[in-house]
Amino acid sequence: MRSELRSLGKKKYRLILVYLIAGLLFVSIIVGSSTWYGQRAQAKRKRNVIFMVSDGFGPASETYARTYFQATQALEHPYGYQLPLDKLLVGSSRTQSSSSLVTDSAAGATAFSCALKSYNGAVGVDPDQKPCGTVLEAAKARGMNTGLVVTSRITHATPAAFSAHVTGRDSESRIAEQQMGEYALGRQVDLLFGGGKCFFLPNETNDGCRLDGRDLWSQYQEEGWATLDTREGFDTLEPTGASLPLMGLFALDHMSYELDRDPKEQPALHEMTHKALEILGAESRQEETGFFLLIEGSRIDMAAHDNDPAAHVHDIAEYQRTVEVVKAFVDSHPETVMISVSDHETGGLTLGMQPGKEYPEYIWYPEVIQRVQNSSWAVGQALSRVDGGVKAKRAALIHSLLPESLGISDATDEEIAFLVDPEQGDIDIEFYLGRMVSRRANVGWTTHGHTGVDVNLYAYGMEAEALRGNHDNTDLGIFVSRFLGLDLPSITDKLNQIILYGWSHG
Amino acid sequence: MRSELRSLGKKKYRLILVYLIAGLLFVSIIVGSSTWYGQRAQAKRKRNVIFMVSDGFGPASETYARTYFQATQALEHPYGYQLPLDKLLVGSSRTQSSSSLVTDSAAGATAFSCALKSYNGAVGVDPDQKPCGTVLEAAKARGMNTGLVVTSRITHATPAAFSAHVTGRDSESRIAEQQMGEYALGRQVDLLFGGGKCFFLPNETNDGCRLDGRDLWSQYQEEGWATLDTREGFDTLEPTGASLPLMGLFALDHMSYELDRDPKEQPALHEMTHKALEILGAESRQEETGFFLLIEGSRIDMAAHDNDPAAHVHDIAEYQRTVEVVKAFVDSHPETVMISVSDHETGGLTLGMQPGKEYPEYIWYPEVIQRVQNSSWAVGQALSRVDGGVKAKRAALIHSLLPESLGISDATDEEIAFLVDPEQGDIDIEFYLGRMVSRRANVGWTTHGHTGVDVNLYAYGMEAEALRGNHDNTDLGIFVSRFLGLDLPSITDKLNQIILYGWSHG
Repeated sequence: MRSELRSLGKKKYRLILVYLIAGLLFVSIIVGSSTWYGQRAQAKRKRNVIFMVSDGFGPASETYARTYFQATQALEHPYGYQLPLDKLLVGSSRTQSSSSLVTDSAAGATAFSCALKSYNGAVGVDPDQKPCGTVLEAAKARGMNTGLVVTSRITHATPAAFSAHVTGRDSESRIAEQQMGEYALGRQVDLLFGGGKCFFLPNETNDGCRLDGRDLWSQYQEEGWATLDTREGFDTLEPTGASLPLMGLFALDHMSYELDRDPKEQPALHEMTHKALEILGAESRQEETGFFLLIEGSRIDMAAHDNDPAAHVHDIAEYQRTVEVVKAFVDSHPETVMISVSDHETGGLTLGMQPGKEYPEYIWYPEVIQRVQNSSWAVGQALSRVDGGVKAKRAALIHSLLPESLGISDATDEEIAFLVDPEQGDIDIEFYLGRMVSRRANVGWTTHGHTGVDVNLYAYGMEAEALRGNHDNTDLGIFVSRFLGLDLPSITDKLNQIILYGWSHG
Repeated sequence: MRSELRSLGKKKYRLILVYLIAGLLFVSIIVGSSTWYGQRAQAKRKRNVIFMVSDGFGPASETYARTYFQATQALEHPYGYQLPLDKLLVGSSRTQSSSSLVTDSAAGATAFSCALKSYNGAVGVDPDQKPCGTVLEAAKARGMNTGLVVTSRITHATPAAFSAHVTGRDSESRIAEQQMGEYALGRQVDLLFGGGKCFFLPNETNDGCRLDGRDLWSQYQEEGWATLDTREGFDTLEPTGASLPLMGLFALDHMSYELDRDPKEQPALHEMTHKALEILGAESRQEETGFFLLIEGSRIDMAAHDNDPAAHVHDIAEYQRTVEVVKAFVDSHPETVMISVSDHETGGLTLGMQPGKEYPEYIWYPEVIQRVQNSSWAVGQALSRVDGGVKAKRAALIHSLLPESLGISDATDEEIAFLVDPEQGDIDIEFYLGRMVSRRANVGWTTHGHTGVDVNLYAYGMEAEALRGNHDNTDLGIFVSRFLGLDLPSITDKLNQIILYGWSHG
């Protein structure tokens, strides 16, 4: 009996040691092989993707914004100053489309959403103009919640490329219908925040800009959509009780540049993002599967098109605030990955320019930008509201607007003469004002269009390290698809079969 | 006895298990804590640093060069094409100096070499104009071999900031003396390859550009330096038998742009690098301590100053070939880290431009660049050699040079008139030719100077992952210093004490 006990004791002893070794080996394998761990987790757990797009934001824009804030905030250790995005830099993304070395936003966003190269202007369609399954649609097919939060019209190229399929980006009336569910797969988006209500209103109304007389806004309200179109409505929306599908459109056209935004009228991007994350991230909504959310700092791009450095930097600042909101969410939801990338660079911004023939000084002046209070667009609009023929009235306004809105108190006679001339088009005035500020800040631009330079790639959270290095823009769609275990080809097949064999909205 | 044996067997058994567990734990700790492992290794083993600088090369330049080769090589899978550097991207480097948001090469290189911010023009000195110990000098103090391989004059700002201490970068005569050892610490550099022989020759000779009559070249030859100044000498130099110190200067001024280089006259950067690595990397030379080698693609910057896109892309291509040579060395010498970074961006290059008021097309044309056979500088020089007064002779040359050298067959009357005018300065002609090509390629520039945009950071080899993300340029000096276990402050102290208490060249 005693020897039996002893033998049992020895056996137990051996067993414990074997378990210990096995345990240690197991831990080593787990720790060593994060890929394996990742795959296991994927099969079992919910996952969230927050895909952020800073439209028209190249590498120069990040340096520009950082240096602007570093220089205008009197920091104690300026050289170490970083923006929220700086801390998440993992690499870069190549941007060319199937039709050009310089992409537009539609092809750029389709590369992200469908993980394929398409032509400039393509919204969720391949080079043969056939619909391609998007990561948003494939996420929906997996039972996930989906959302779009942007500052442009919600029907604009980037959000459209995730939620619609049209052969040309200008078909915004059609895009609006598809976003409500009038397409092959039915409704795919649960939450939409942004601007562009006019494409949901009939063309005969003052506020409508649709090509037809349909009132999508009222129709879908009746069919059960929750809708919002005021700041007050946004503020009083309780995330816990919010019903889906939910659409909040806070401007008829694009939302305001951050520099011009009236906080009493429109929420900021980081506020919309915060609310969207509260709604989509609520435990009850994503117990099993999680969510896919697209966030776009849409108007960073438009300010760059205008070559308006002040509107550009303030929309970037708001985007950085949004990054902080998203990062905090990732920190408290470790099953989440966030990506921040641009579709392309806009404007050919550089931080140095040569005003004349003389060899340039090595310097630029953030303080010039700091004095600007309004976008060139807003100042241009104010001028265009003056009765065109009355030069004196226009001149008076210019003399007050230049110092007050643009911080310019040294306008030349030549500059004044250009601005006073009522023959100048709105867009020419707008561009000219941007140039007046840029020249004084010694900030250069090469175009009002896009450029082909690689854009920075930022990522944070689960498996973010897989995105290190230089990638093609389509790789980001592939990453999201793998991360969520999506099946894009099956969605593409479904879309094309339904279209081939007929589809009608019930 | 048997029970003793049994007890011994049991003890042995326990001992083996204890060793096993301990072993497993040990392996876990080793694998888990690479920092600790790194520190151990540092104390025990030789280490090499290859510090590559692509002067004046911003993020746009990398996209530009990649797309140029992608587009002009008829690749089967063009979207996946990457340059050697693309595969090594780890982050970005902030570039501002202590005196400006836009650095020059001297302050930029001093940030790398001394790991501190200094003013534009500073060569190895701090903002108070006091000498600062460089990583090259600190490596020498540790018994390491040191080298400089560049395509500019060897006395130019970047190599100078690692090997000399002057308060203004133009003191190239003084820099040459210091590079030979005429300074506080004596000779610090073992191998120098590049251009700029004229600063080693007396000013009264045709080839000399020194401010004094000293013949450093002959003097140091006599004092035991091995010297080279021909392609033949370079080719016949046997790396295994090469004696140090060794200086090879293959041009009086800067070496040629790669586009203009006559391979019978000058070796290419990748060839100089290959030879330098063979010499410094020889086992006999680095058994204990390894080497520090600076490599600079110096003229990438100068082509960008000229806004000459063809000279720019071909110097970048040669730099990429050099990266491949270095990468191969790292692969076979795992105790090595290579870093590739720029001091700043030059020219404000962007890949898109707007030629007039009309909204621009989204495109640029690599094929325009492909047709260029010579740098704008070389074409300008050819023109300036024509007797200034003879317009007809100049016009004839222009009509043959434009198509033959620049691939331009559609020059406008206005362009020809500008070029024919003998009153135009050499530099104006040079800039104008660069602009003629750029405009046709739809490639934009904003300045002939530098810009403040962050530059890409590439790294490969031992501990390269520590460089991931967005860094200040001084972080790279800190990284090298830590990687090699250097003591920069002690070198700085030594330099300042010797200078304070007197130093004379024996």
